[in-house]
Amino acid sequence: MKATIINIGDELLIGQVVNTNASRMAQMLVGAGIDVCCTEVIGDNADDINDSLSRALKNCQIVLITGGLGPTKDDITKKTLCNYFHSELYENPEALANIQRIFSARGYELTPINRQQAWVPRCCTMINNVVGTAPCMWFELPSEQPGQPASVVVSMPGVPFEMVNLMETEIVPRLQRHFCTGQIINKNILVQGIGESFLSDLIEPWELALPSTIRLAYLPQSGMLKLRLTARGGHDERALLQQQIDEAVKALYPIAGQYIVGEDLETIPELVAYTMKRHHATLATAESCTGGALAQQLTAMAGASEYYLGGVVAYSNETKERALGVKHETLLAHGAVSEETVRQMAEGVRERLHADYAVATTGIAGPTGGTPEKPVGTVWIAVASPQGTTAKLLKFGDRRAQTIERTCNAVWAELVRIVNDETK
Amino acid sequence: MKATIINIGDELLIGQVVNTNASRMAQMLVGAGIDVCCTEVIGDNADDINDSLSRALKNCQIVLITGGLGPTKDDITKKTLCNYFHSELYENPEALANIQRIFSARGYELTPINRQQAWVPRCCTMINNVVGTAPCMWFELPSEQPGQPASVVVSMPGVPFEMVNLMETEIVPRLQRHFCTGQIINKNILVQGIGESFLSDLIEPWELALPSTIRLAYLPQSGMLKLRLTARGGHDERALLQQQIDEAVKALYPIAGQYIVGEDLETIPELVAYTMKRHHATLATAESCTGGALAQQLTAMAGASEYYLGGVVAYSNETKERALGVKHETLLAHGAVSEETVRQMAEGVRERLHADYAVATTGIAGPTGGTPEKPVGTVWIAVASPQGTTAKLLKFGDRRAQTIERTCNAVWAELVRIVNDETK
Repeated sequence: MKATIINIGDELLIGQVVNTNASRMAQMLVGAGIDVCCTEVIGDNADDINDSLSRALKNCQIVLITGGLGPTKDDITKKTLCNYFHSELYENPEALANIQRIFSARGYELTPINRQQAWVPRCCTMINNVVGTAPCMWFELPSEQPGQPASVVVSMPGVPFEMVNLMETEIVPRLQRHFCTGQIINKNILVQGIGESFLSDLIEPWELALPSTIRLAYLPQSGMLKLRLTARGGHDERALLQQQIDEAVKALYPIAGQYIVGEDLETIPELVAYTMKRHHATLATAESCTGGALAQQLTAMAGASEYYLGGVVAYSNETKERALGVKHETLLAHGAVSEETVRQMAEGVRERLHADYAVATTGIAGPTGGTPEKPVGTVWIAVASPQGTTAKLLKFGDRRAQTIERTCNAVWAELVRIVNDETK
Repeated sequence: MKATIINIGDELLIGQVVNTNASRMAQMLVGAGIDVCCTEVIGDNADDINDSLSRALKNCQIVLITGGLGPTKDDITKKTLCNYFHSELYENPEALANIQRIFSARGYELTPINRQQAWVPRCCTMINNVVGTAPCMWFELPSEQPGQPASVVVSMPGVPFEMVNLMETEIVPRLQRHFCTGQIINKNILVQGIGESFLSDLIEPWELALPSTIRLAYLPQSGMLKLRLTARGGHDERALLQQQIDEAVKALYPIAGQYIVGEDLETIPELVAYTMKRHHATLATAESCTGGALAQQLTAMAGASEYYLGGVVAYSNETKERALGVKHETLLAHGAVSEETVRQMAEGVRERLHADYAVATTGIAGPTGGTPEKPVGTVWIAVASPQGTTAKLLKFGDRRAQTIERTCNAVWAELVRIVNDETK
């Protein structure tokens, strides 16, 4: 069973909005045992919609479309699909009732332009979008192979939470019922402290011995490397695939176990949460150049309050003194971007918030603010622990977002290393 | 001149990594006057690469490809392109020298697997990737139209900062030289306080009177609405297009000026920065449920230190007391998620950091932690200003990320409204 995802929208096409829908939708499909063969972004243009849809239906039995369902003139997806399926629009009473309910809950009058959103092609199954005004449309086309289920085309709104709600509650369950989906199992192994090519050399015999049902991929990310094992098989082979994955993982440890820091963790912040919870340790943050990114990464995950007490974003020298107790003389003598300052920041927040561990950052993220001695990209990080404080100098380039991201990754890698070391 | 972007990588296709490359690349192309007609994500699969490339070359003169150039077995883009162009691989000395330089700078030995990265097809122009080990490849194919420049296929690494560096320094300038690119001008107008359909009704006569060179799009985002005007014309029409855009914007103000809060601002945090700088006011943040997201959004933008002093992430009751001065009795009597607490948080951080304005958030982002009186999604926000403190109760659902994002947008909208009101 294969799917194509088509995300429609000029704002996506010209890059003004990052397309997060494709990855969310793909994750949900993969989790349901449906392969994604292609994701496409096209503009609000009838010819492009028709071309993409025809092409997708040649290769795939499932085509999921988002976007272009708003009430304004530039949204043409519904009309285009109606023509594509040689159908006509009618006012769907259930869709209209949903729109009226949403408008009256917000205290607005329904305008004619909003009422048009309740019109859908006669040939589709209207699926109610309970969190938004644009209805979802499910079309079926007879398969060219006799005895096979009909191909499915679904049109959903492009607003991410409306799409996610529809996918979770309606579309994925309906697809699973409509098609007999196969099994896919993914397993991630997180590795630190070894480069991709060195690891590839090291584990080559293991990789060559993997069963043909398992595929290996290297996903390098800043500060770590993710190995992804994907096992695919028939509807009734889940137990076999799981056993093959388990055996492959078990066989990897004697070869590369010293570099493995976690399993089934997607990101470095997840590794931090896992490590802090495992050791029942609390954490505080003191951020200058990362400006809240460390805190945000931790608190984006549910359950952060189990180990994270909070932190200070000290974006001025005064705040470093007032909220963290960095000494005025230290800032005068060594500057805000210095080993002395970053140590006092980490120790200050650890003490003030009564945390087991604390991390701190101070640096020049750029693009301006550098000096000959401390060019843009100069960053100090520190980890304060029950056994003392460690500081480290990092040197990055003049790309602000990259410097912030890499600083966060370096802080987390250092913290995880120290927590693991000190609790051995 | 039209371009297709093809991002290759199983990790993108199955949604484990959000594809940010497509939007970055599209922005750069649009800025150079090159239309993007489609962006596609496909897996590390030779047939899919061949199909996408053939199809793209039928519609577009430019095909930009990222990904699949790593040193491991799952990366097959280079070999596939070499076969597509009926060429053969050879070791490029300049690419090899670059790889050796990077390895020796990192203190690593060059392995045979890394040396293979220096091999490129004979028929391409190798473009040195000075920040990474995978060389960039530029292929040309004679156009089917006589007198037209050759079509161009470029293969770049998928690592975002390597791609961006290559695009900025090499690919975009080369494309501009190779093709005679037309002009595209984008203009954004930020609107608050009116729904999309109401605005659409209001400005319909203005929209219908726009010249045919200008296209209008509505880009709804949480808490605001962006109107995008796009003017397109020939290479020598830039002045005319700019004049048409200027006149269209001027004509919009008498109709909808009361809702316009900024021009050429992409996001709400940019609107906050613009508003604070315009009024020479300083800002501090006190965050519980947003967990640093407010701080992170501001400091992601260069120049934040001009108005942002810093803040406190108070993720526990103790931190709310210790770092913000929230009264112990208040927390006992009303709880952390209450009007009383959020007011003390905003006032506490404003006073401690000596800021003109301060914002605060406290709530239950979920998915757990709710009670019958305060269900998941209950959020209090406050703005403390020189004229007093305003607090507001918000009610969201049980989606953590959405609650955090919407809380941030609500805080910023409230702050901008109050700053504009109080400085009138």
